[in-house]
Amino acid sequence: MSHPVSPLAPAELPPLSALAGVRLAAGAAGIRYQGRTDVLLVELAPGTTVGGVFTKSLTRSAPVDWCREALAGGRARALVVNAGNANAFTGKAGWDAMEAVIKAAAETLNCRPSRVFAASTGIIGQVLPAEPFIGKLAEMTGRLAEDGWSDAAQAIMTTDTFAKAAIRETEIAGTPVRIVGIVKGSGMIAPDMATMLGFIATDAALPAPILQTLLGRATELSFNAITVDSDTSTSDTVLMFATGAAGNGPLTDAADSRLGDFQAALESLCVDLAQQVVRDGEGATKFVTVAVSGAENDGSAKKIAFAIANSPLVKTAIAGEDANWGRIVAAVGKAGEPADRDKLAVSVGGITIARDGSVVIGYDETPVAAHMKGQEIDIAVDIGLGAGKATVWTCDLTHGYISINADYRS
Amino acid sequence: MSHPVSPLAPAELPPLSALAGVRLAAGAAGIRYQGRTDVLLVELAPGTTVGGVFTKSLTRSAPVDWCREALAGGRARALVVNAGNANAFTGKAGWDAMEAVIKAAAETLNCRPSRVFAASTGIIGQVLPAEPFIGKLAEMTGRLAEDGWSDAAQAIMTTDTFAKAAIRETEIAGTPVRIVGIVKGSGMIAPDMATMLGFIATDAALPAPILQTLLGRATELSFNAITVDSDTSTSDTVLMFATGAAGNGPLTDAADSRLGDFQAALESLCVDLAQQVVRDGEGATKFVTVAVSGAENDGSAKKIAFAIANSPLVKTAIAGEDANWGRIVAAVGKAGEPADRDKLAVSVGGITIARDGSVVIGYDETPVAAHMKGQEIDIAVDIGLGAGKATVWTCDLTHGYISINADYRS
Repeated sequence: MSHPVSPLAPAELPPLSALAGVRLAAGAAGIRYQGRTDVLLVELAPGTTVGGVFTKSLTRSAPVDWCREALAGGRARALVVNAGNANAFTGKAGWDAMEAVIKAAAETLNCRPSRVFAASTGIIGQVLPAEPFIGKLAEMTGRLAEDGWSDAAQAIMTTDTFAKAAIRETEIAGTPVRIVGIVKGSGMIAPDMATMLGFIATDAALPAPILQTLLGRATELSFNAITVDSDTSTSDTVLMFATGAAGNGPLTDAADSRLGDFQAALESLCVDLAQQVVRDGEGATKFVTVAVSGAENDGSAKKIAFAIANSPLVKTAIAGEDANWGRIVAAVGKAGEPADRDKLAVSVGGITIARDGSVVIGYDETPVAAHMKGQEIDIAVDIGLGAGKATVWTCDLTHGYISINADYRS
Repeated sequence: MSHPVSPLAPAELPPLSALAGVRLAAGAAGIRYQGRTDVLLVELAPGTTVGGVFTKSLTRSAPVDWCREALAGGRARALVVNAGNANAFTGKAGWDAMEAVIKAAAETLNCRPSRVFAASTGIIGQVLPAEPFIGKLAEMTGRLAEDGWSDAAQAIMTTDTFAKAAIRETEIAGTPVRIVGIVKGSGMIAPDMATMLGFIATDAALPAPILQTLLGRATELSFNAITVDSDTSTSDTVLMFATGAAGNGPLTDAADSRLGDFQAALESLCVDLAQQVVRDGEGATKFVTVAVSGAENDGSAKKIAFAIANSPLVKTAIAGEDANWGRIVAAVGKAGEPADRDKLAVSVGGITIARDGSVVIGYDETPVAAHMKGQEIDIAVDIGLGAGKATVWTCDLTHGYISINADYRS
């Protein structure tokens, strides 16, 4: 279960100072892992609004179903998370276990259960043991603290080899506001939903519908633009909470120009967190950026970019430091999106390899081969048809991925 | 480039006796490989009809473009194939090289170039060197022989670890007819097109439109029902030739009931060949059958089956002999097809693990764990919604796949 820290990990966790209105405590409930924290309790100040994006999987977990319902209220007072057990595909018994934890947390924090959000991550198909978690809640409540963010980032890890967090400072109409986020994920990472677990908080005052809109936009450019292995999780959840403690003035429209800086900061934070997930991709040794331009539209560009980023043959070539651009071309061809073979251009590491459907005259592989030896690989493809563009991020496919996943459960 | 023979390989190549109207010769042109055959010339009797199915890739190879055009004529007199170079994404230079080979073959065999079919397989992005192939044609023509099938199956291999062929005997309206097929492929194998290279011949007399219909149907249940790595090739081609030497009576309709036995034999042969490709899947140690039932319709069932068969997490779990049915459930959930979590049933090795959305009471993993240790793995999923069903075949994902593909080109 314990794997060496990814070579792509950032040097250190960013300093995560307090965010007014949020207090956290991690605990060791031994749900699956021993000798480490595996449960998290977060208390949110009264009046905190909430937005959320969730997996589109049809076999989603009990907590995902719960959060989707609870989101209708727009308010949050608490969050409970456990690692090691996804409580997915567990039927009524799984739902009951989750509800028991939520009710116990609501009682401890003296709030309505419908204001408690929940997330579970880990093995699929086993009912969450509720008692170990419930047994820790009173003690954890006594330890709730504003400086608990680092501990929280640790407690939600599964096959992650490093804790992941990011922080941004910005302003809304002159009022300084902050955004803090933590995230977990390194396998079962695929596009087209809110990938993995992520929890973001801001002290900005934002009505829930605005929060939802801003989070949805940021997710599309970040968590929904990464892939490790093309497998979509049953548990993916990103929740964002706004405590309002910063005291910015009232806002009624997500399109309000005074939210421009905030949206940019949120997008930057989400991209940072999403890239950290890729940097902890199971077995990853290279961080890969795939930029597609010239597609018919942005959606088409994203599909082509993911066809490249999900291709096992492209990903193994990168692992082998092989500038095998033919596999990139083949991935474009299989994407099912408009493309014209004879207008394609491909570059790697900023060097144009092919243009107008064949290799450039006098192509010298030397600088491309040097680029492939680095840790950061840049692939750019121009389709030559329109103005659509998209960027997605992935990692290489190595023996490490096989080792981690051929014995994950056993 | 040389890898140990797949543990899933059949004990031996089936005996490939002559098929009247087809003569073959293999040669060693050194296009990419040394010390082995890498080119194939096939002569077809005058009057031979032809059908074909090809990759749907938008970055398809020059020979695929050629064959699609030539197919309009419905007649074939020759086939030229080379291994080691796909002649894909090679622009005009690649087209010219291919045309030179085709014209030389037409001259040698004294036929029209439009009756010569071609296929290339191997590395993408490099222009086929025509001269070494052309230089061999006269000598190969002198060696054309009806018993050249085994040599042919060898000559078209790339990363294949064993030669692949199948033979069927059947009848049309009382006339005995035979079908012989050879195939190559073990990586860049994905659904939804005619996967890899396959060449099938029969001595039946069949008009080209009937041949095309019968081949299309058989392909859907065989070559389009396998996946090794979800990557679609630029070169996939299956061609089928009918020499007419068997002398069965005239047929004008593919739905003619006298073709029932022939269609069944052709489907059986195609499934046999397709399964051989999976059994030579790069790095494969387990042969996996995924059967989905109870889907809304057959197309939906096939998509769900492929979501399972393409899931890296399912495939690595199988490699690790881990009965990790949670990953099967997650793959169903991500398929994007109608499914109801609470109606799903999953069985492995014939043993029901989950029913109605959760694990069966008293589930005993022991017999399932024993099944996972075998070489033939059976996964069955019932969606519980309708009558749609489909079966697809795949292999596990192992360190061998990474080893083969991280240094294929270098």
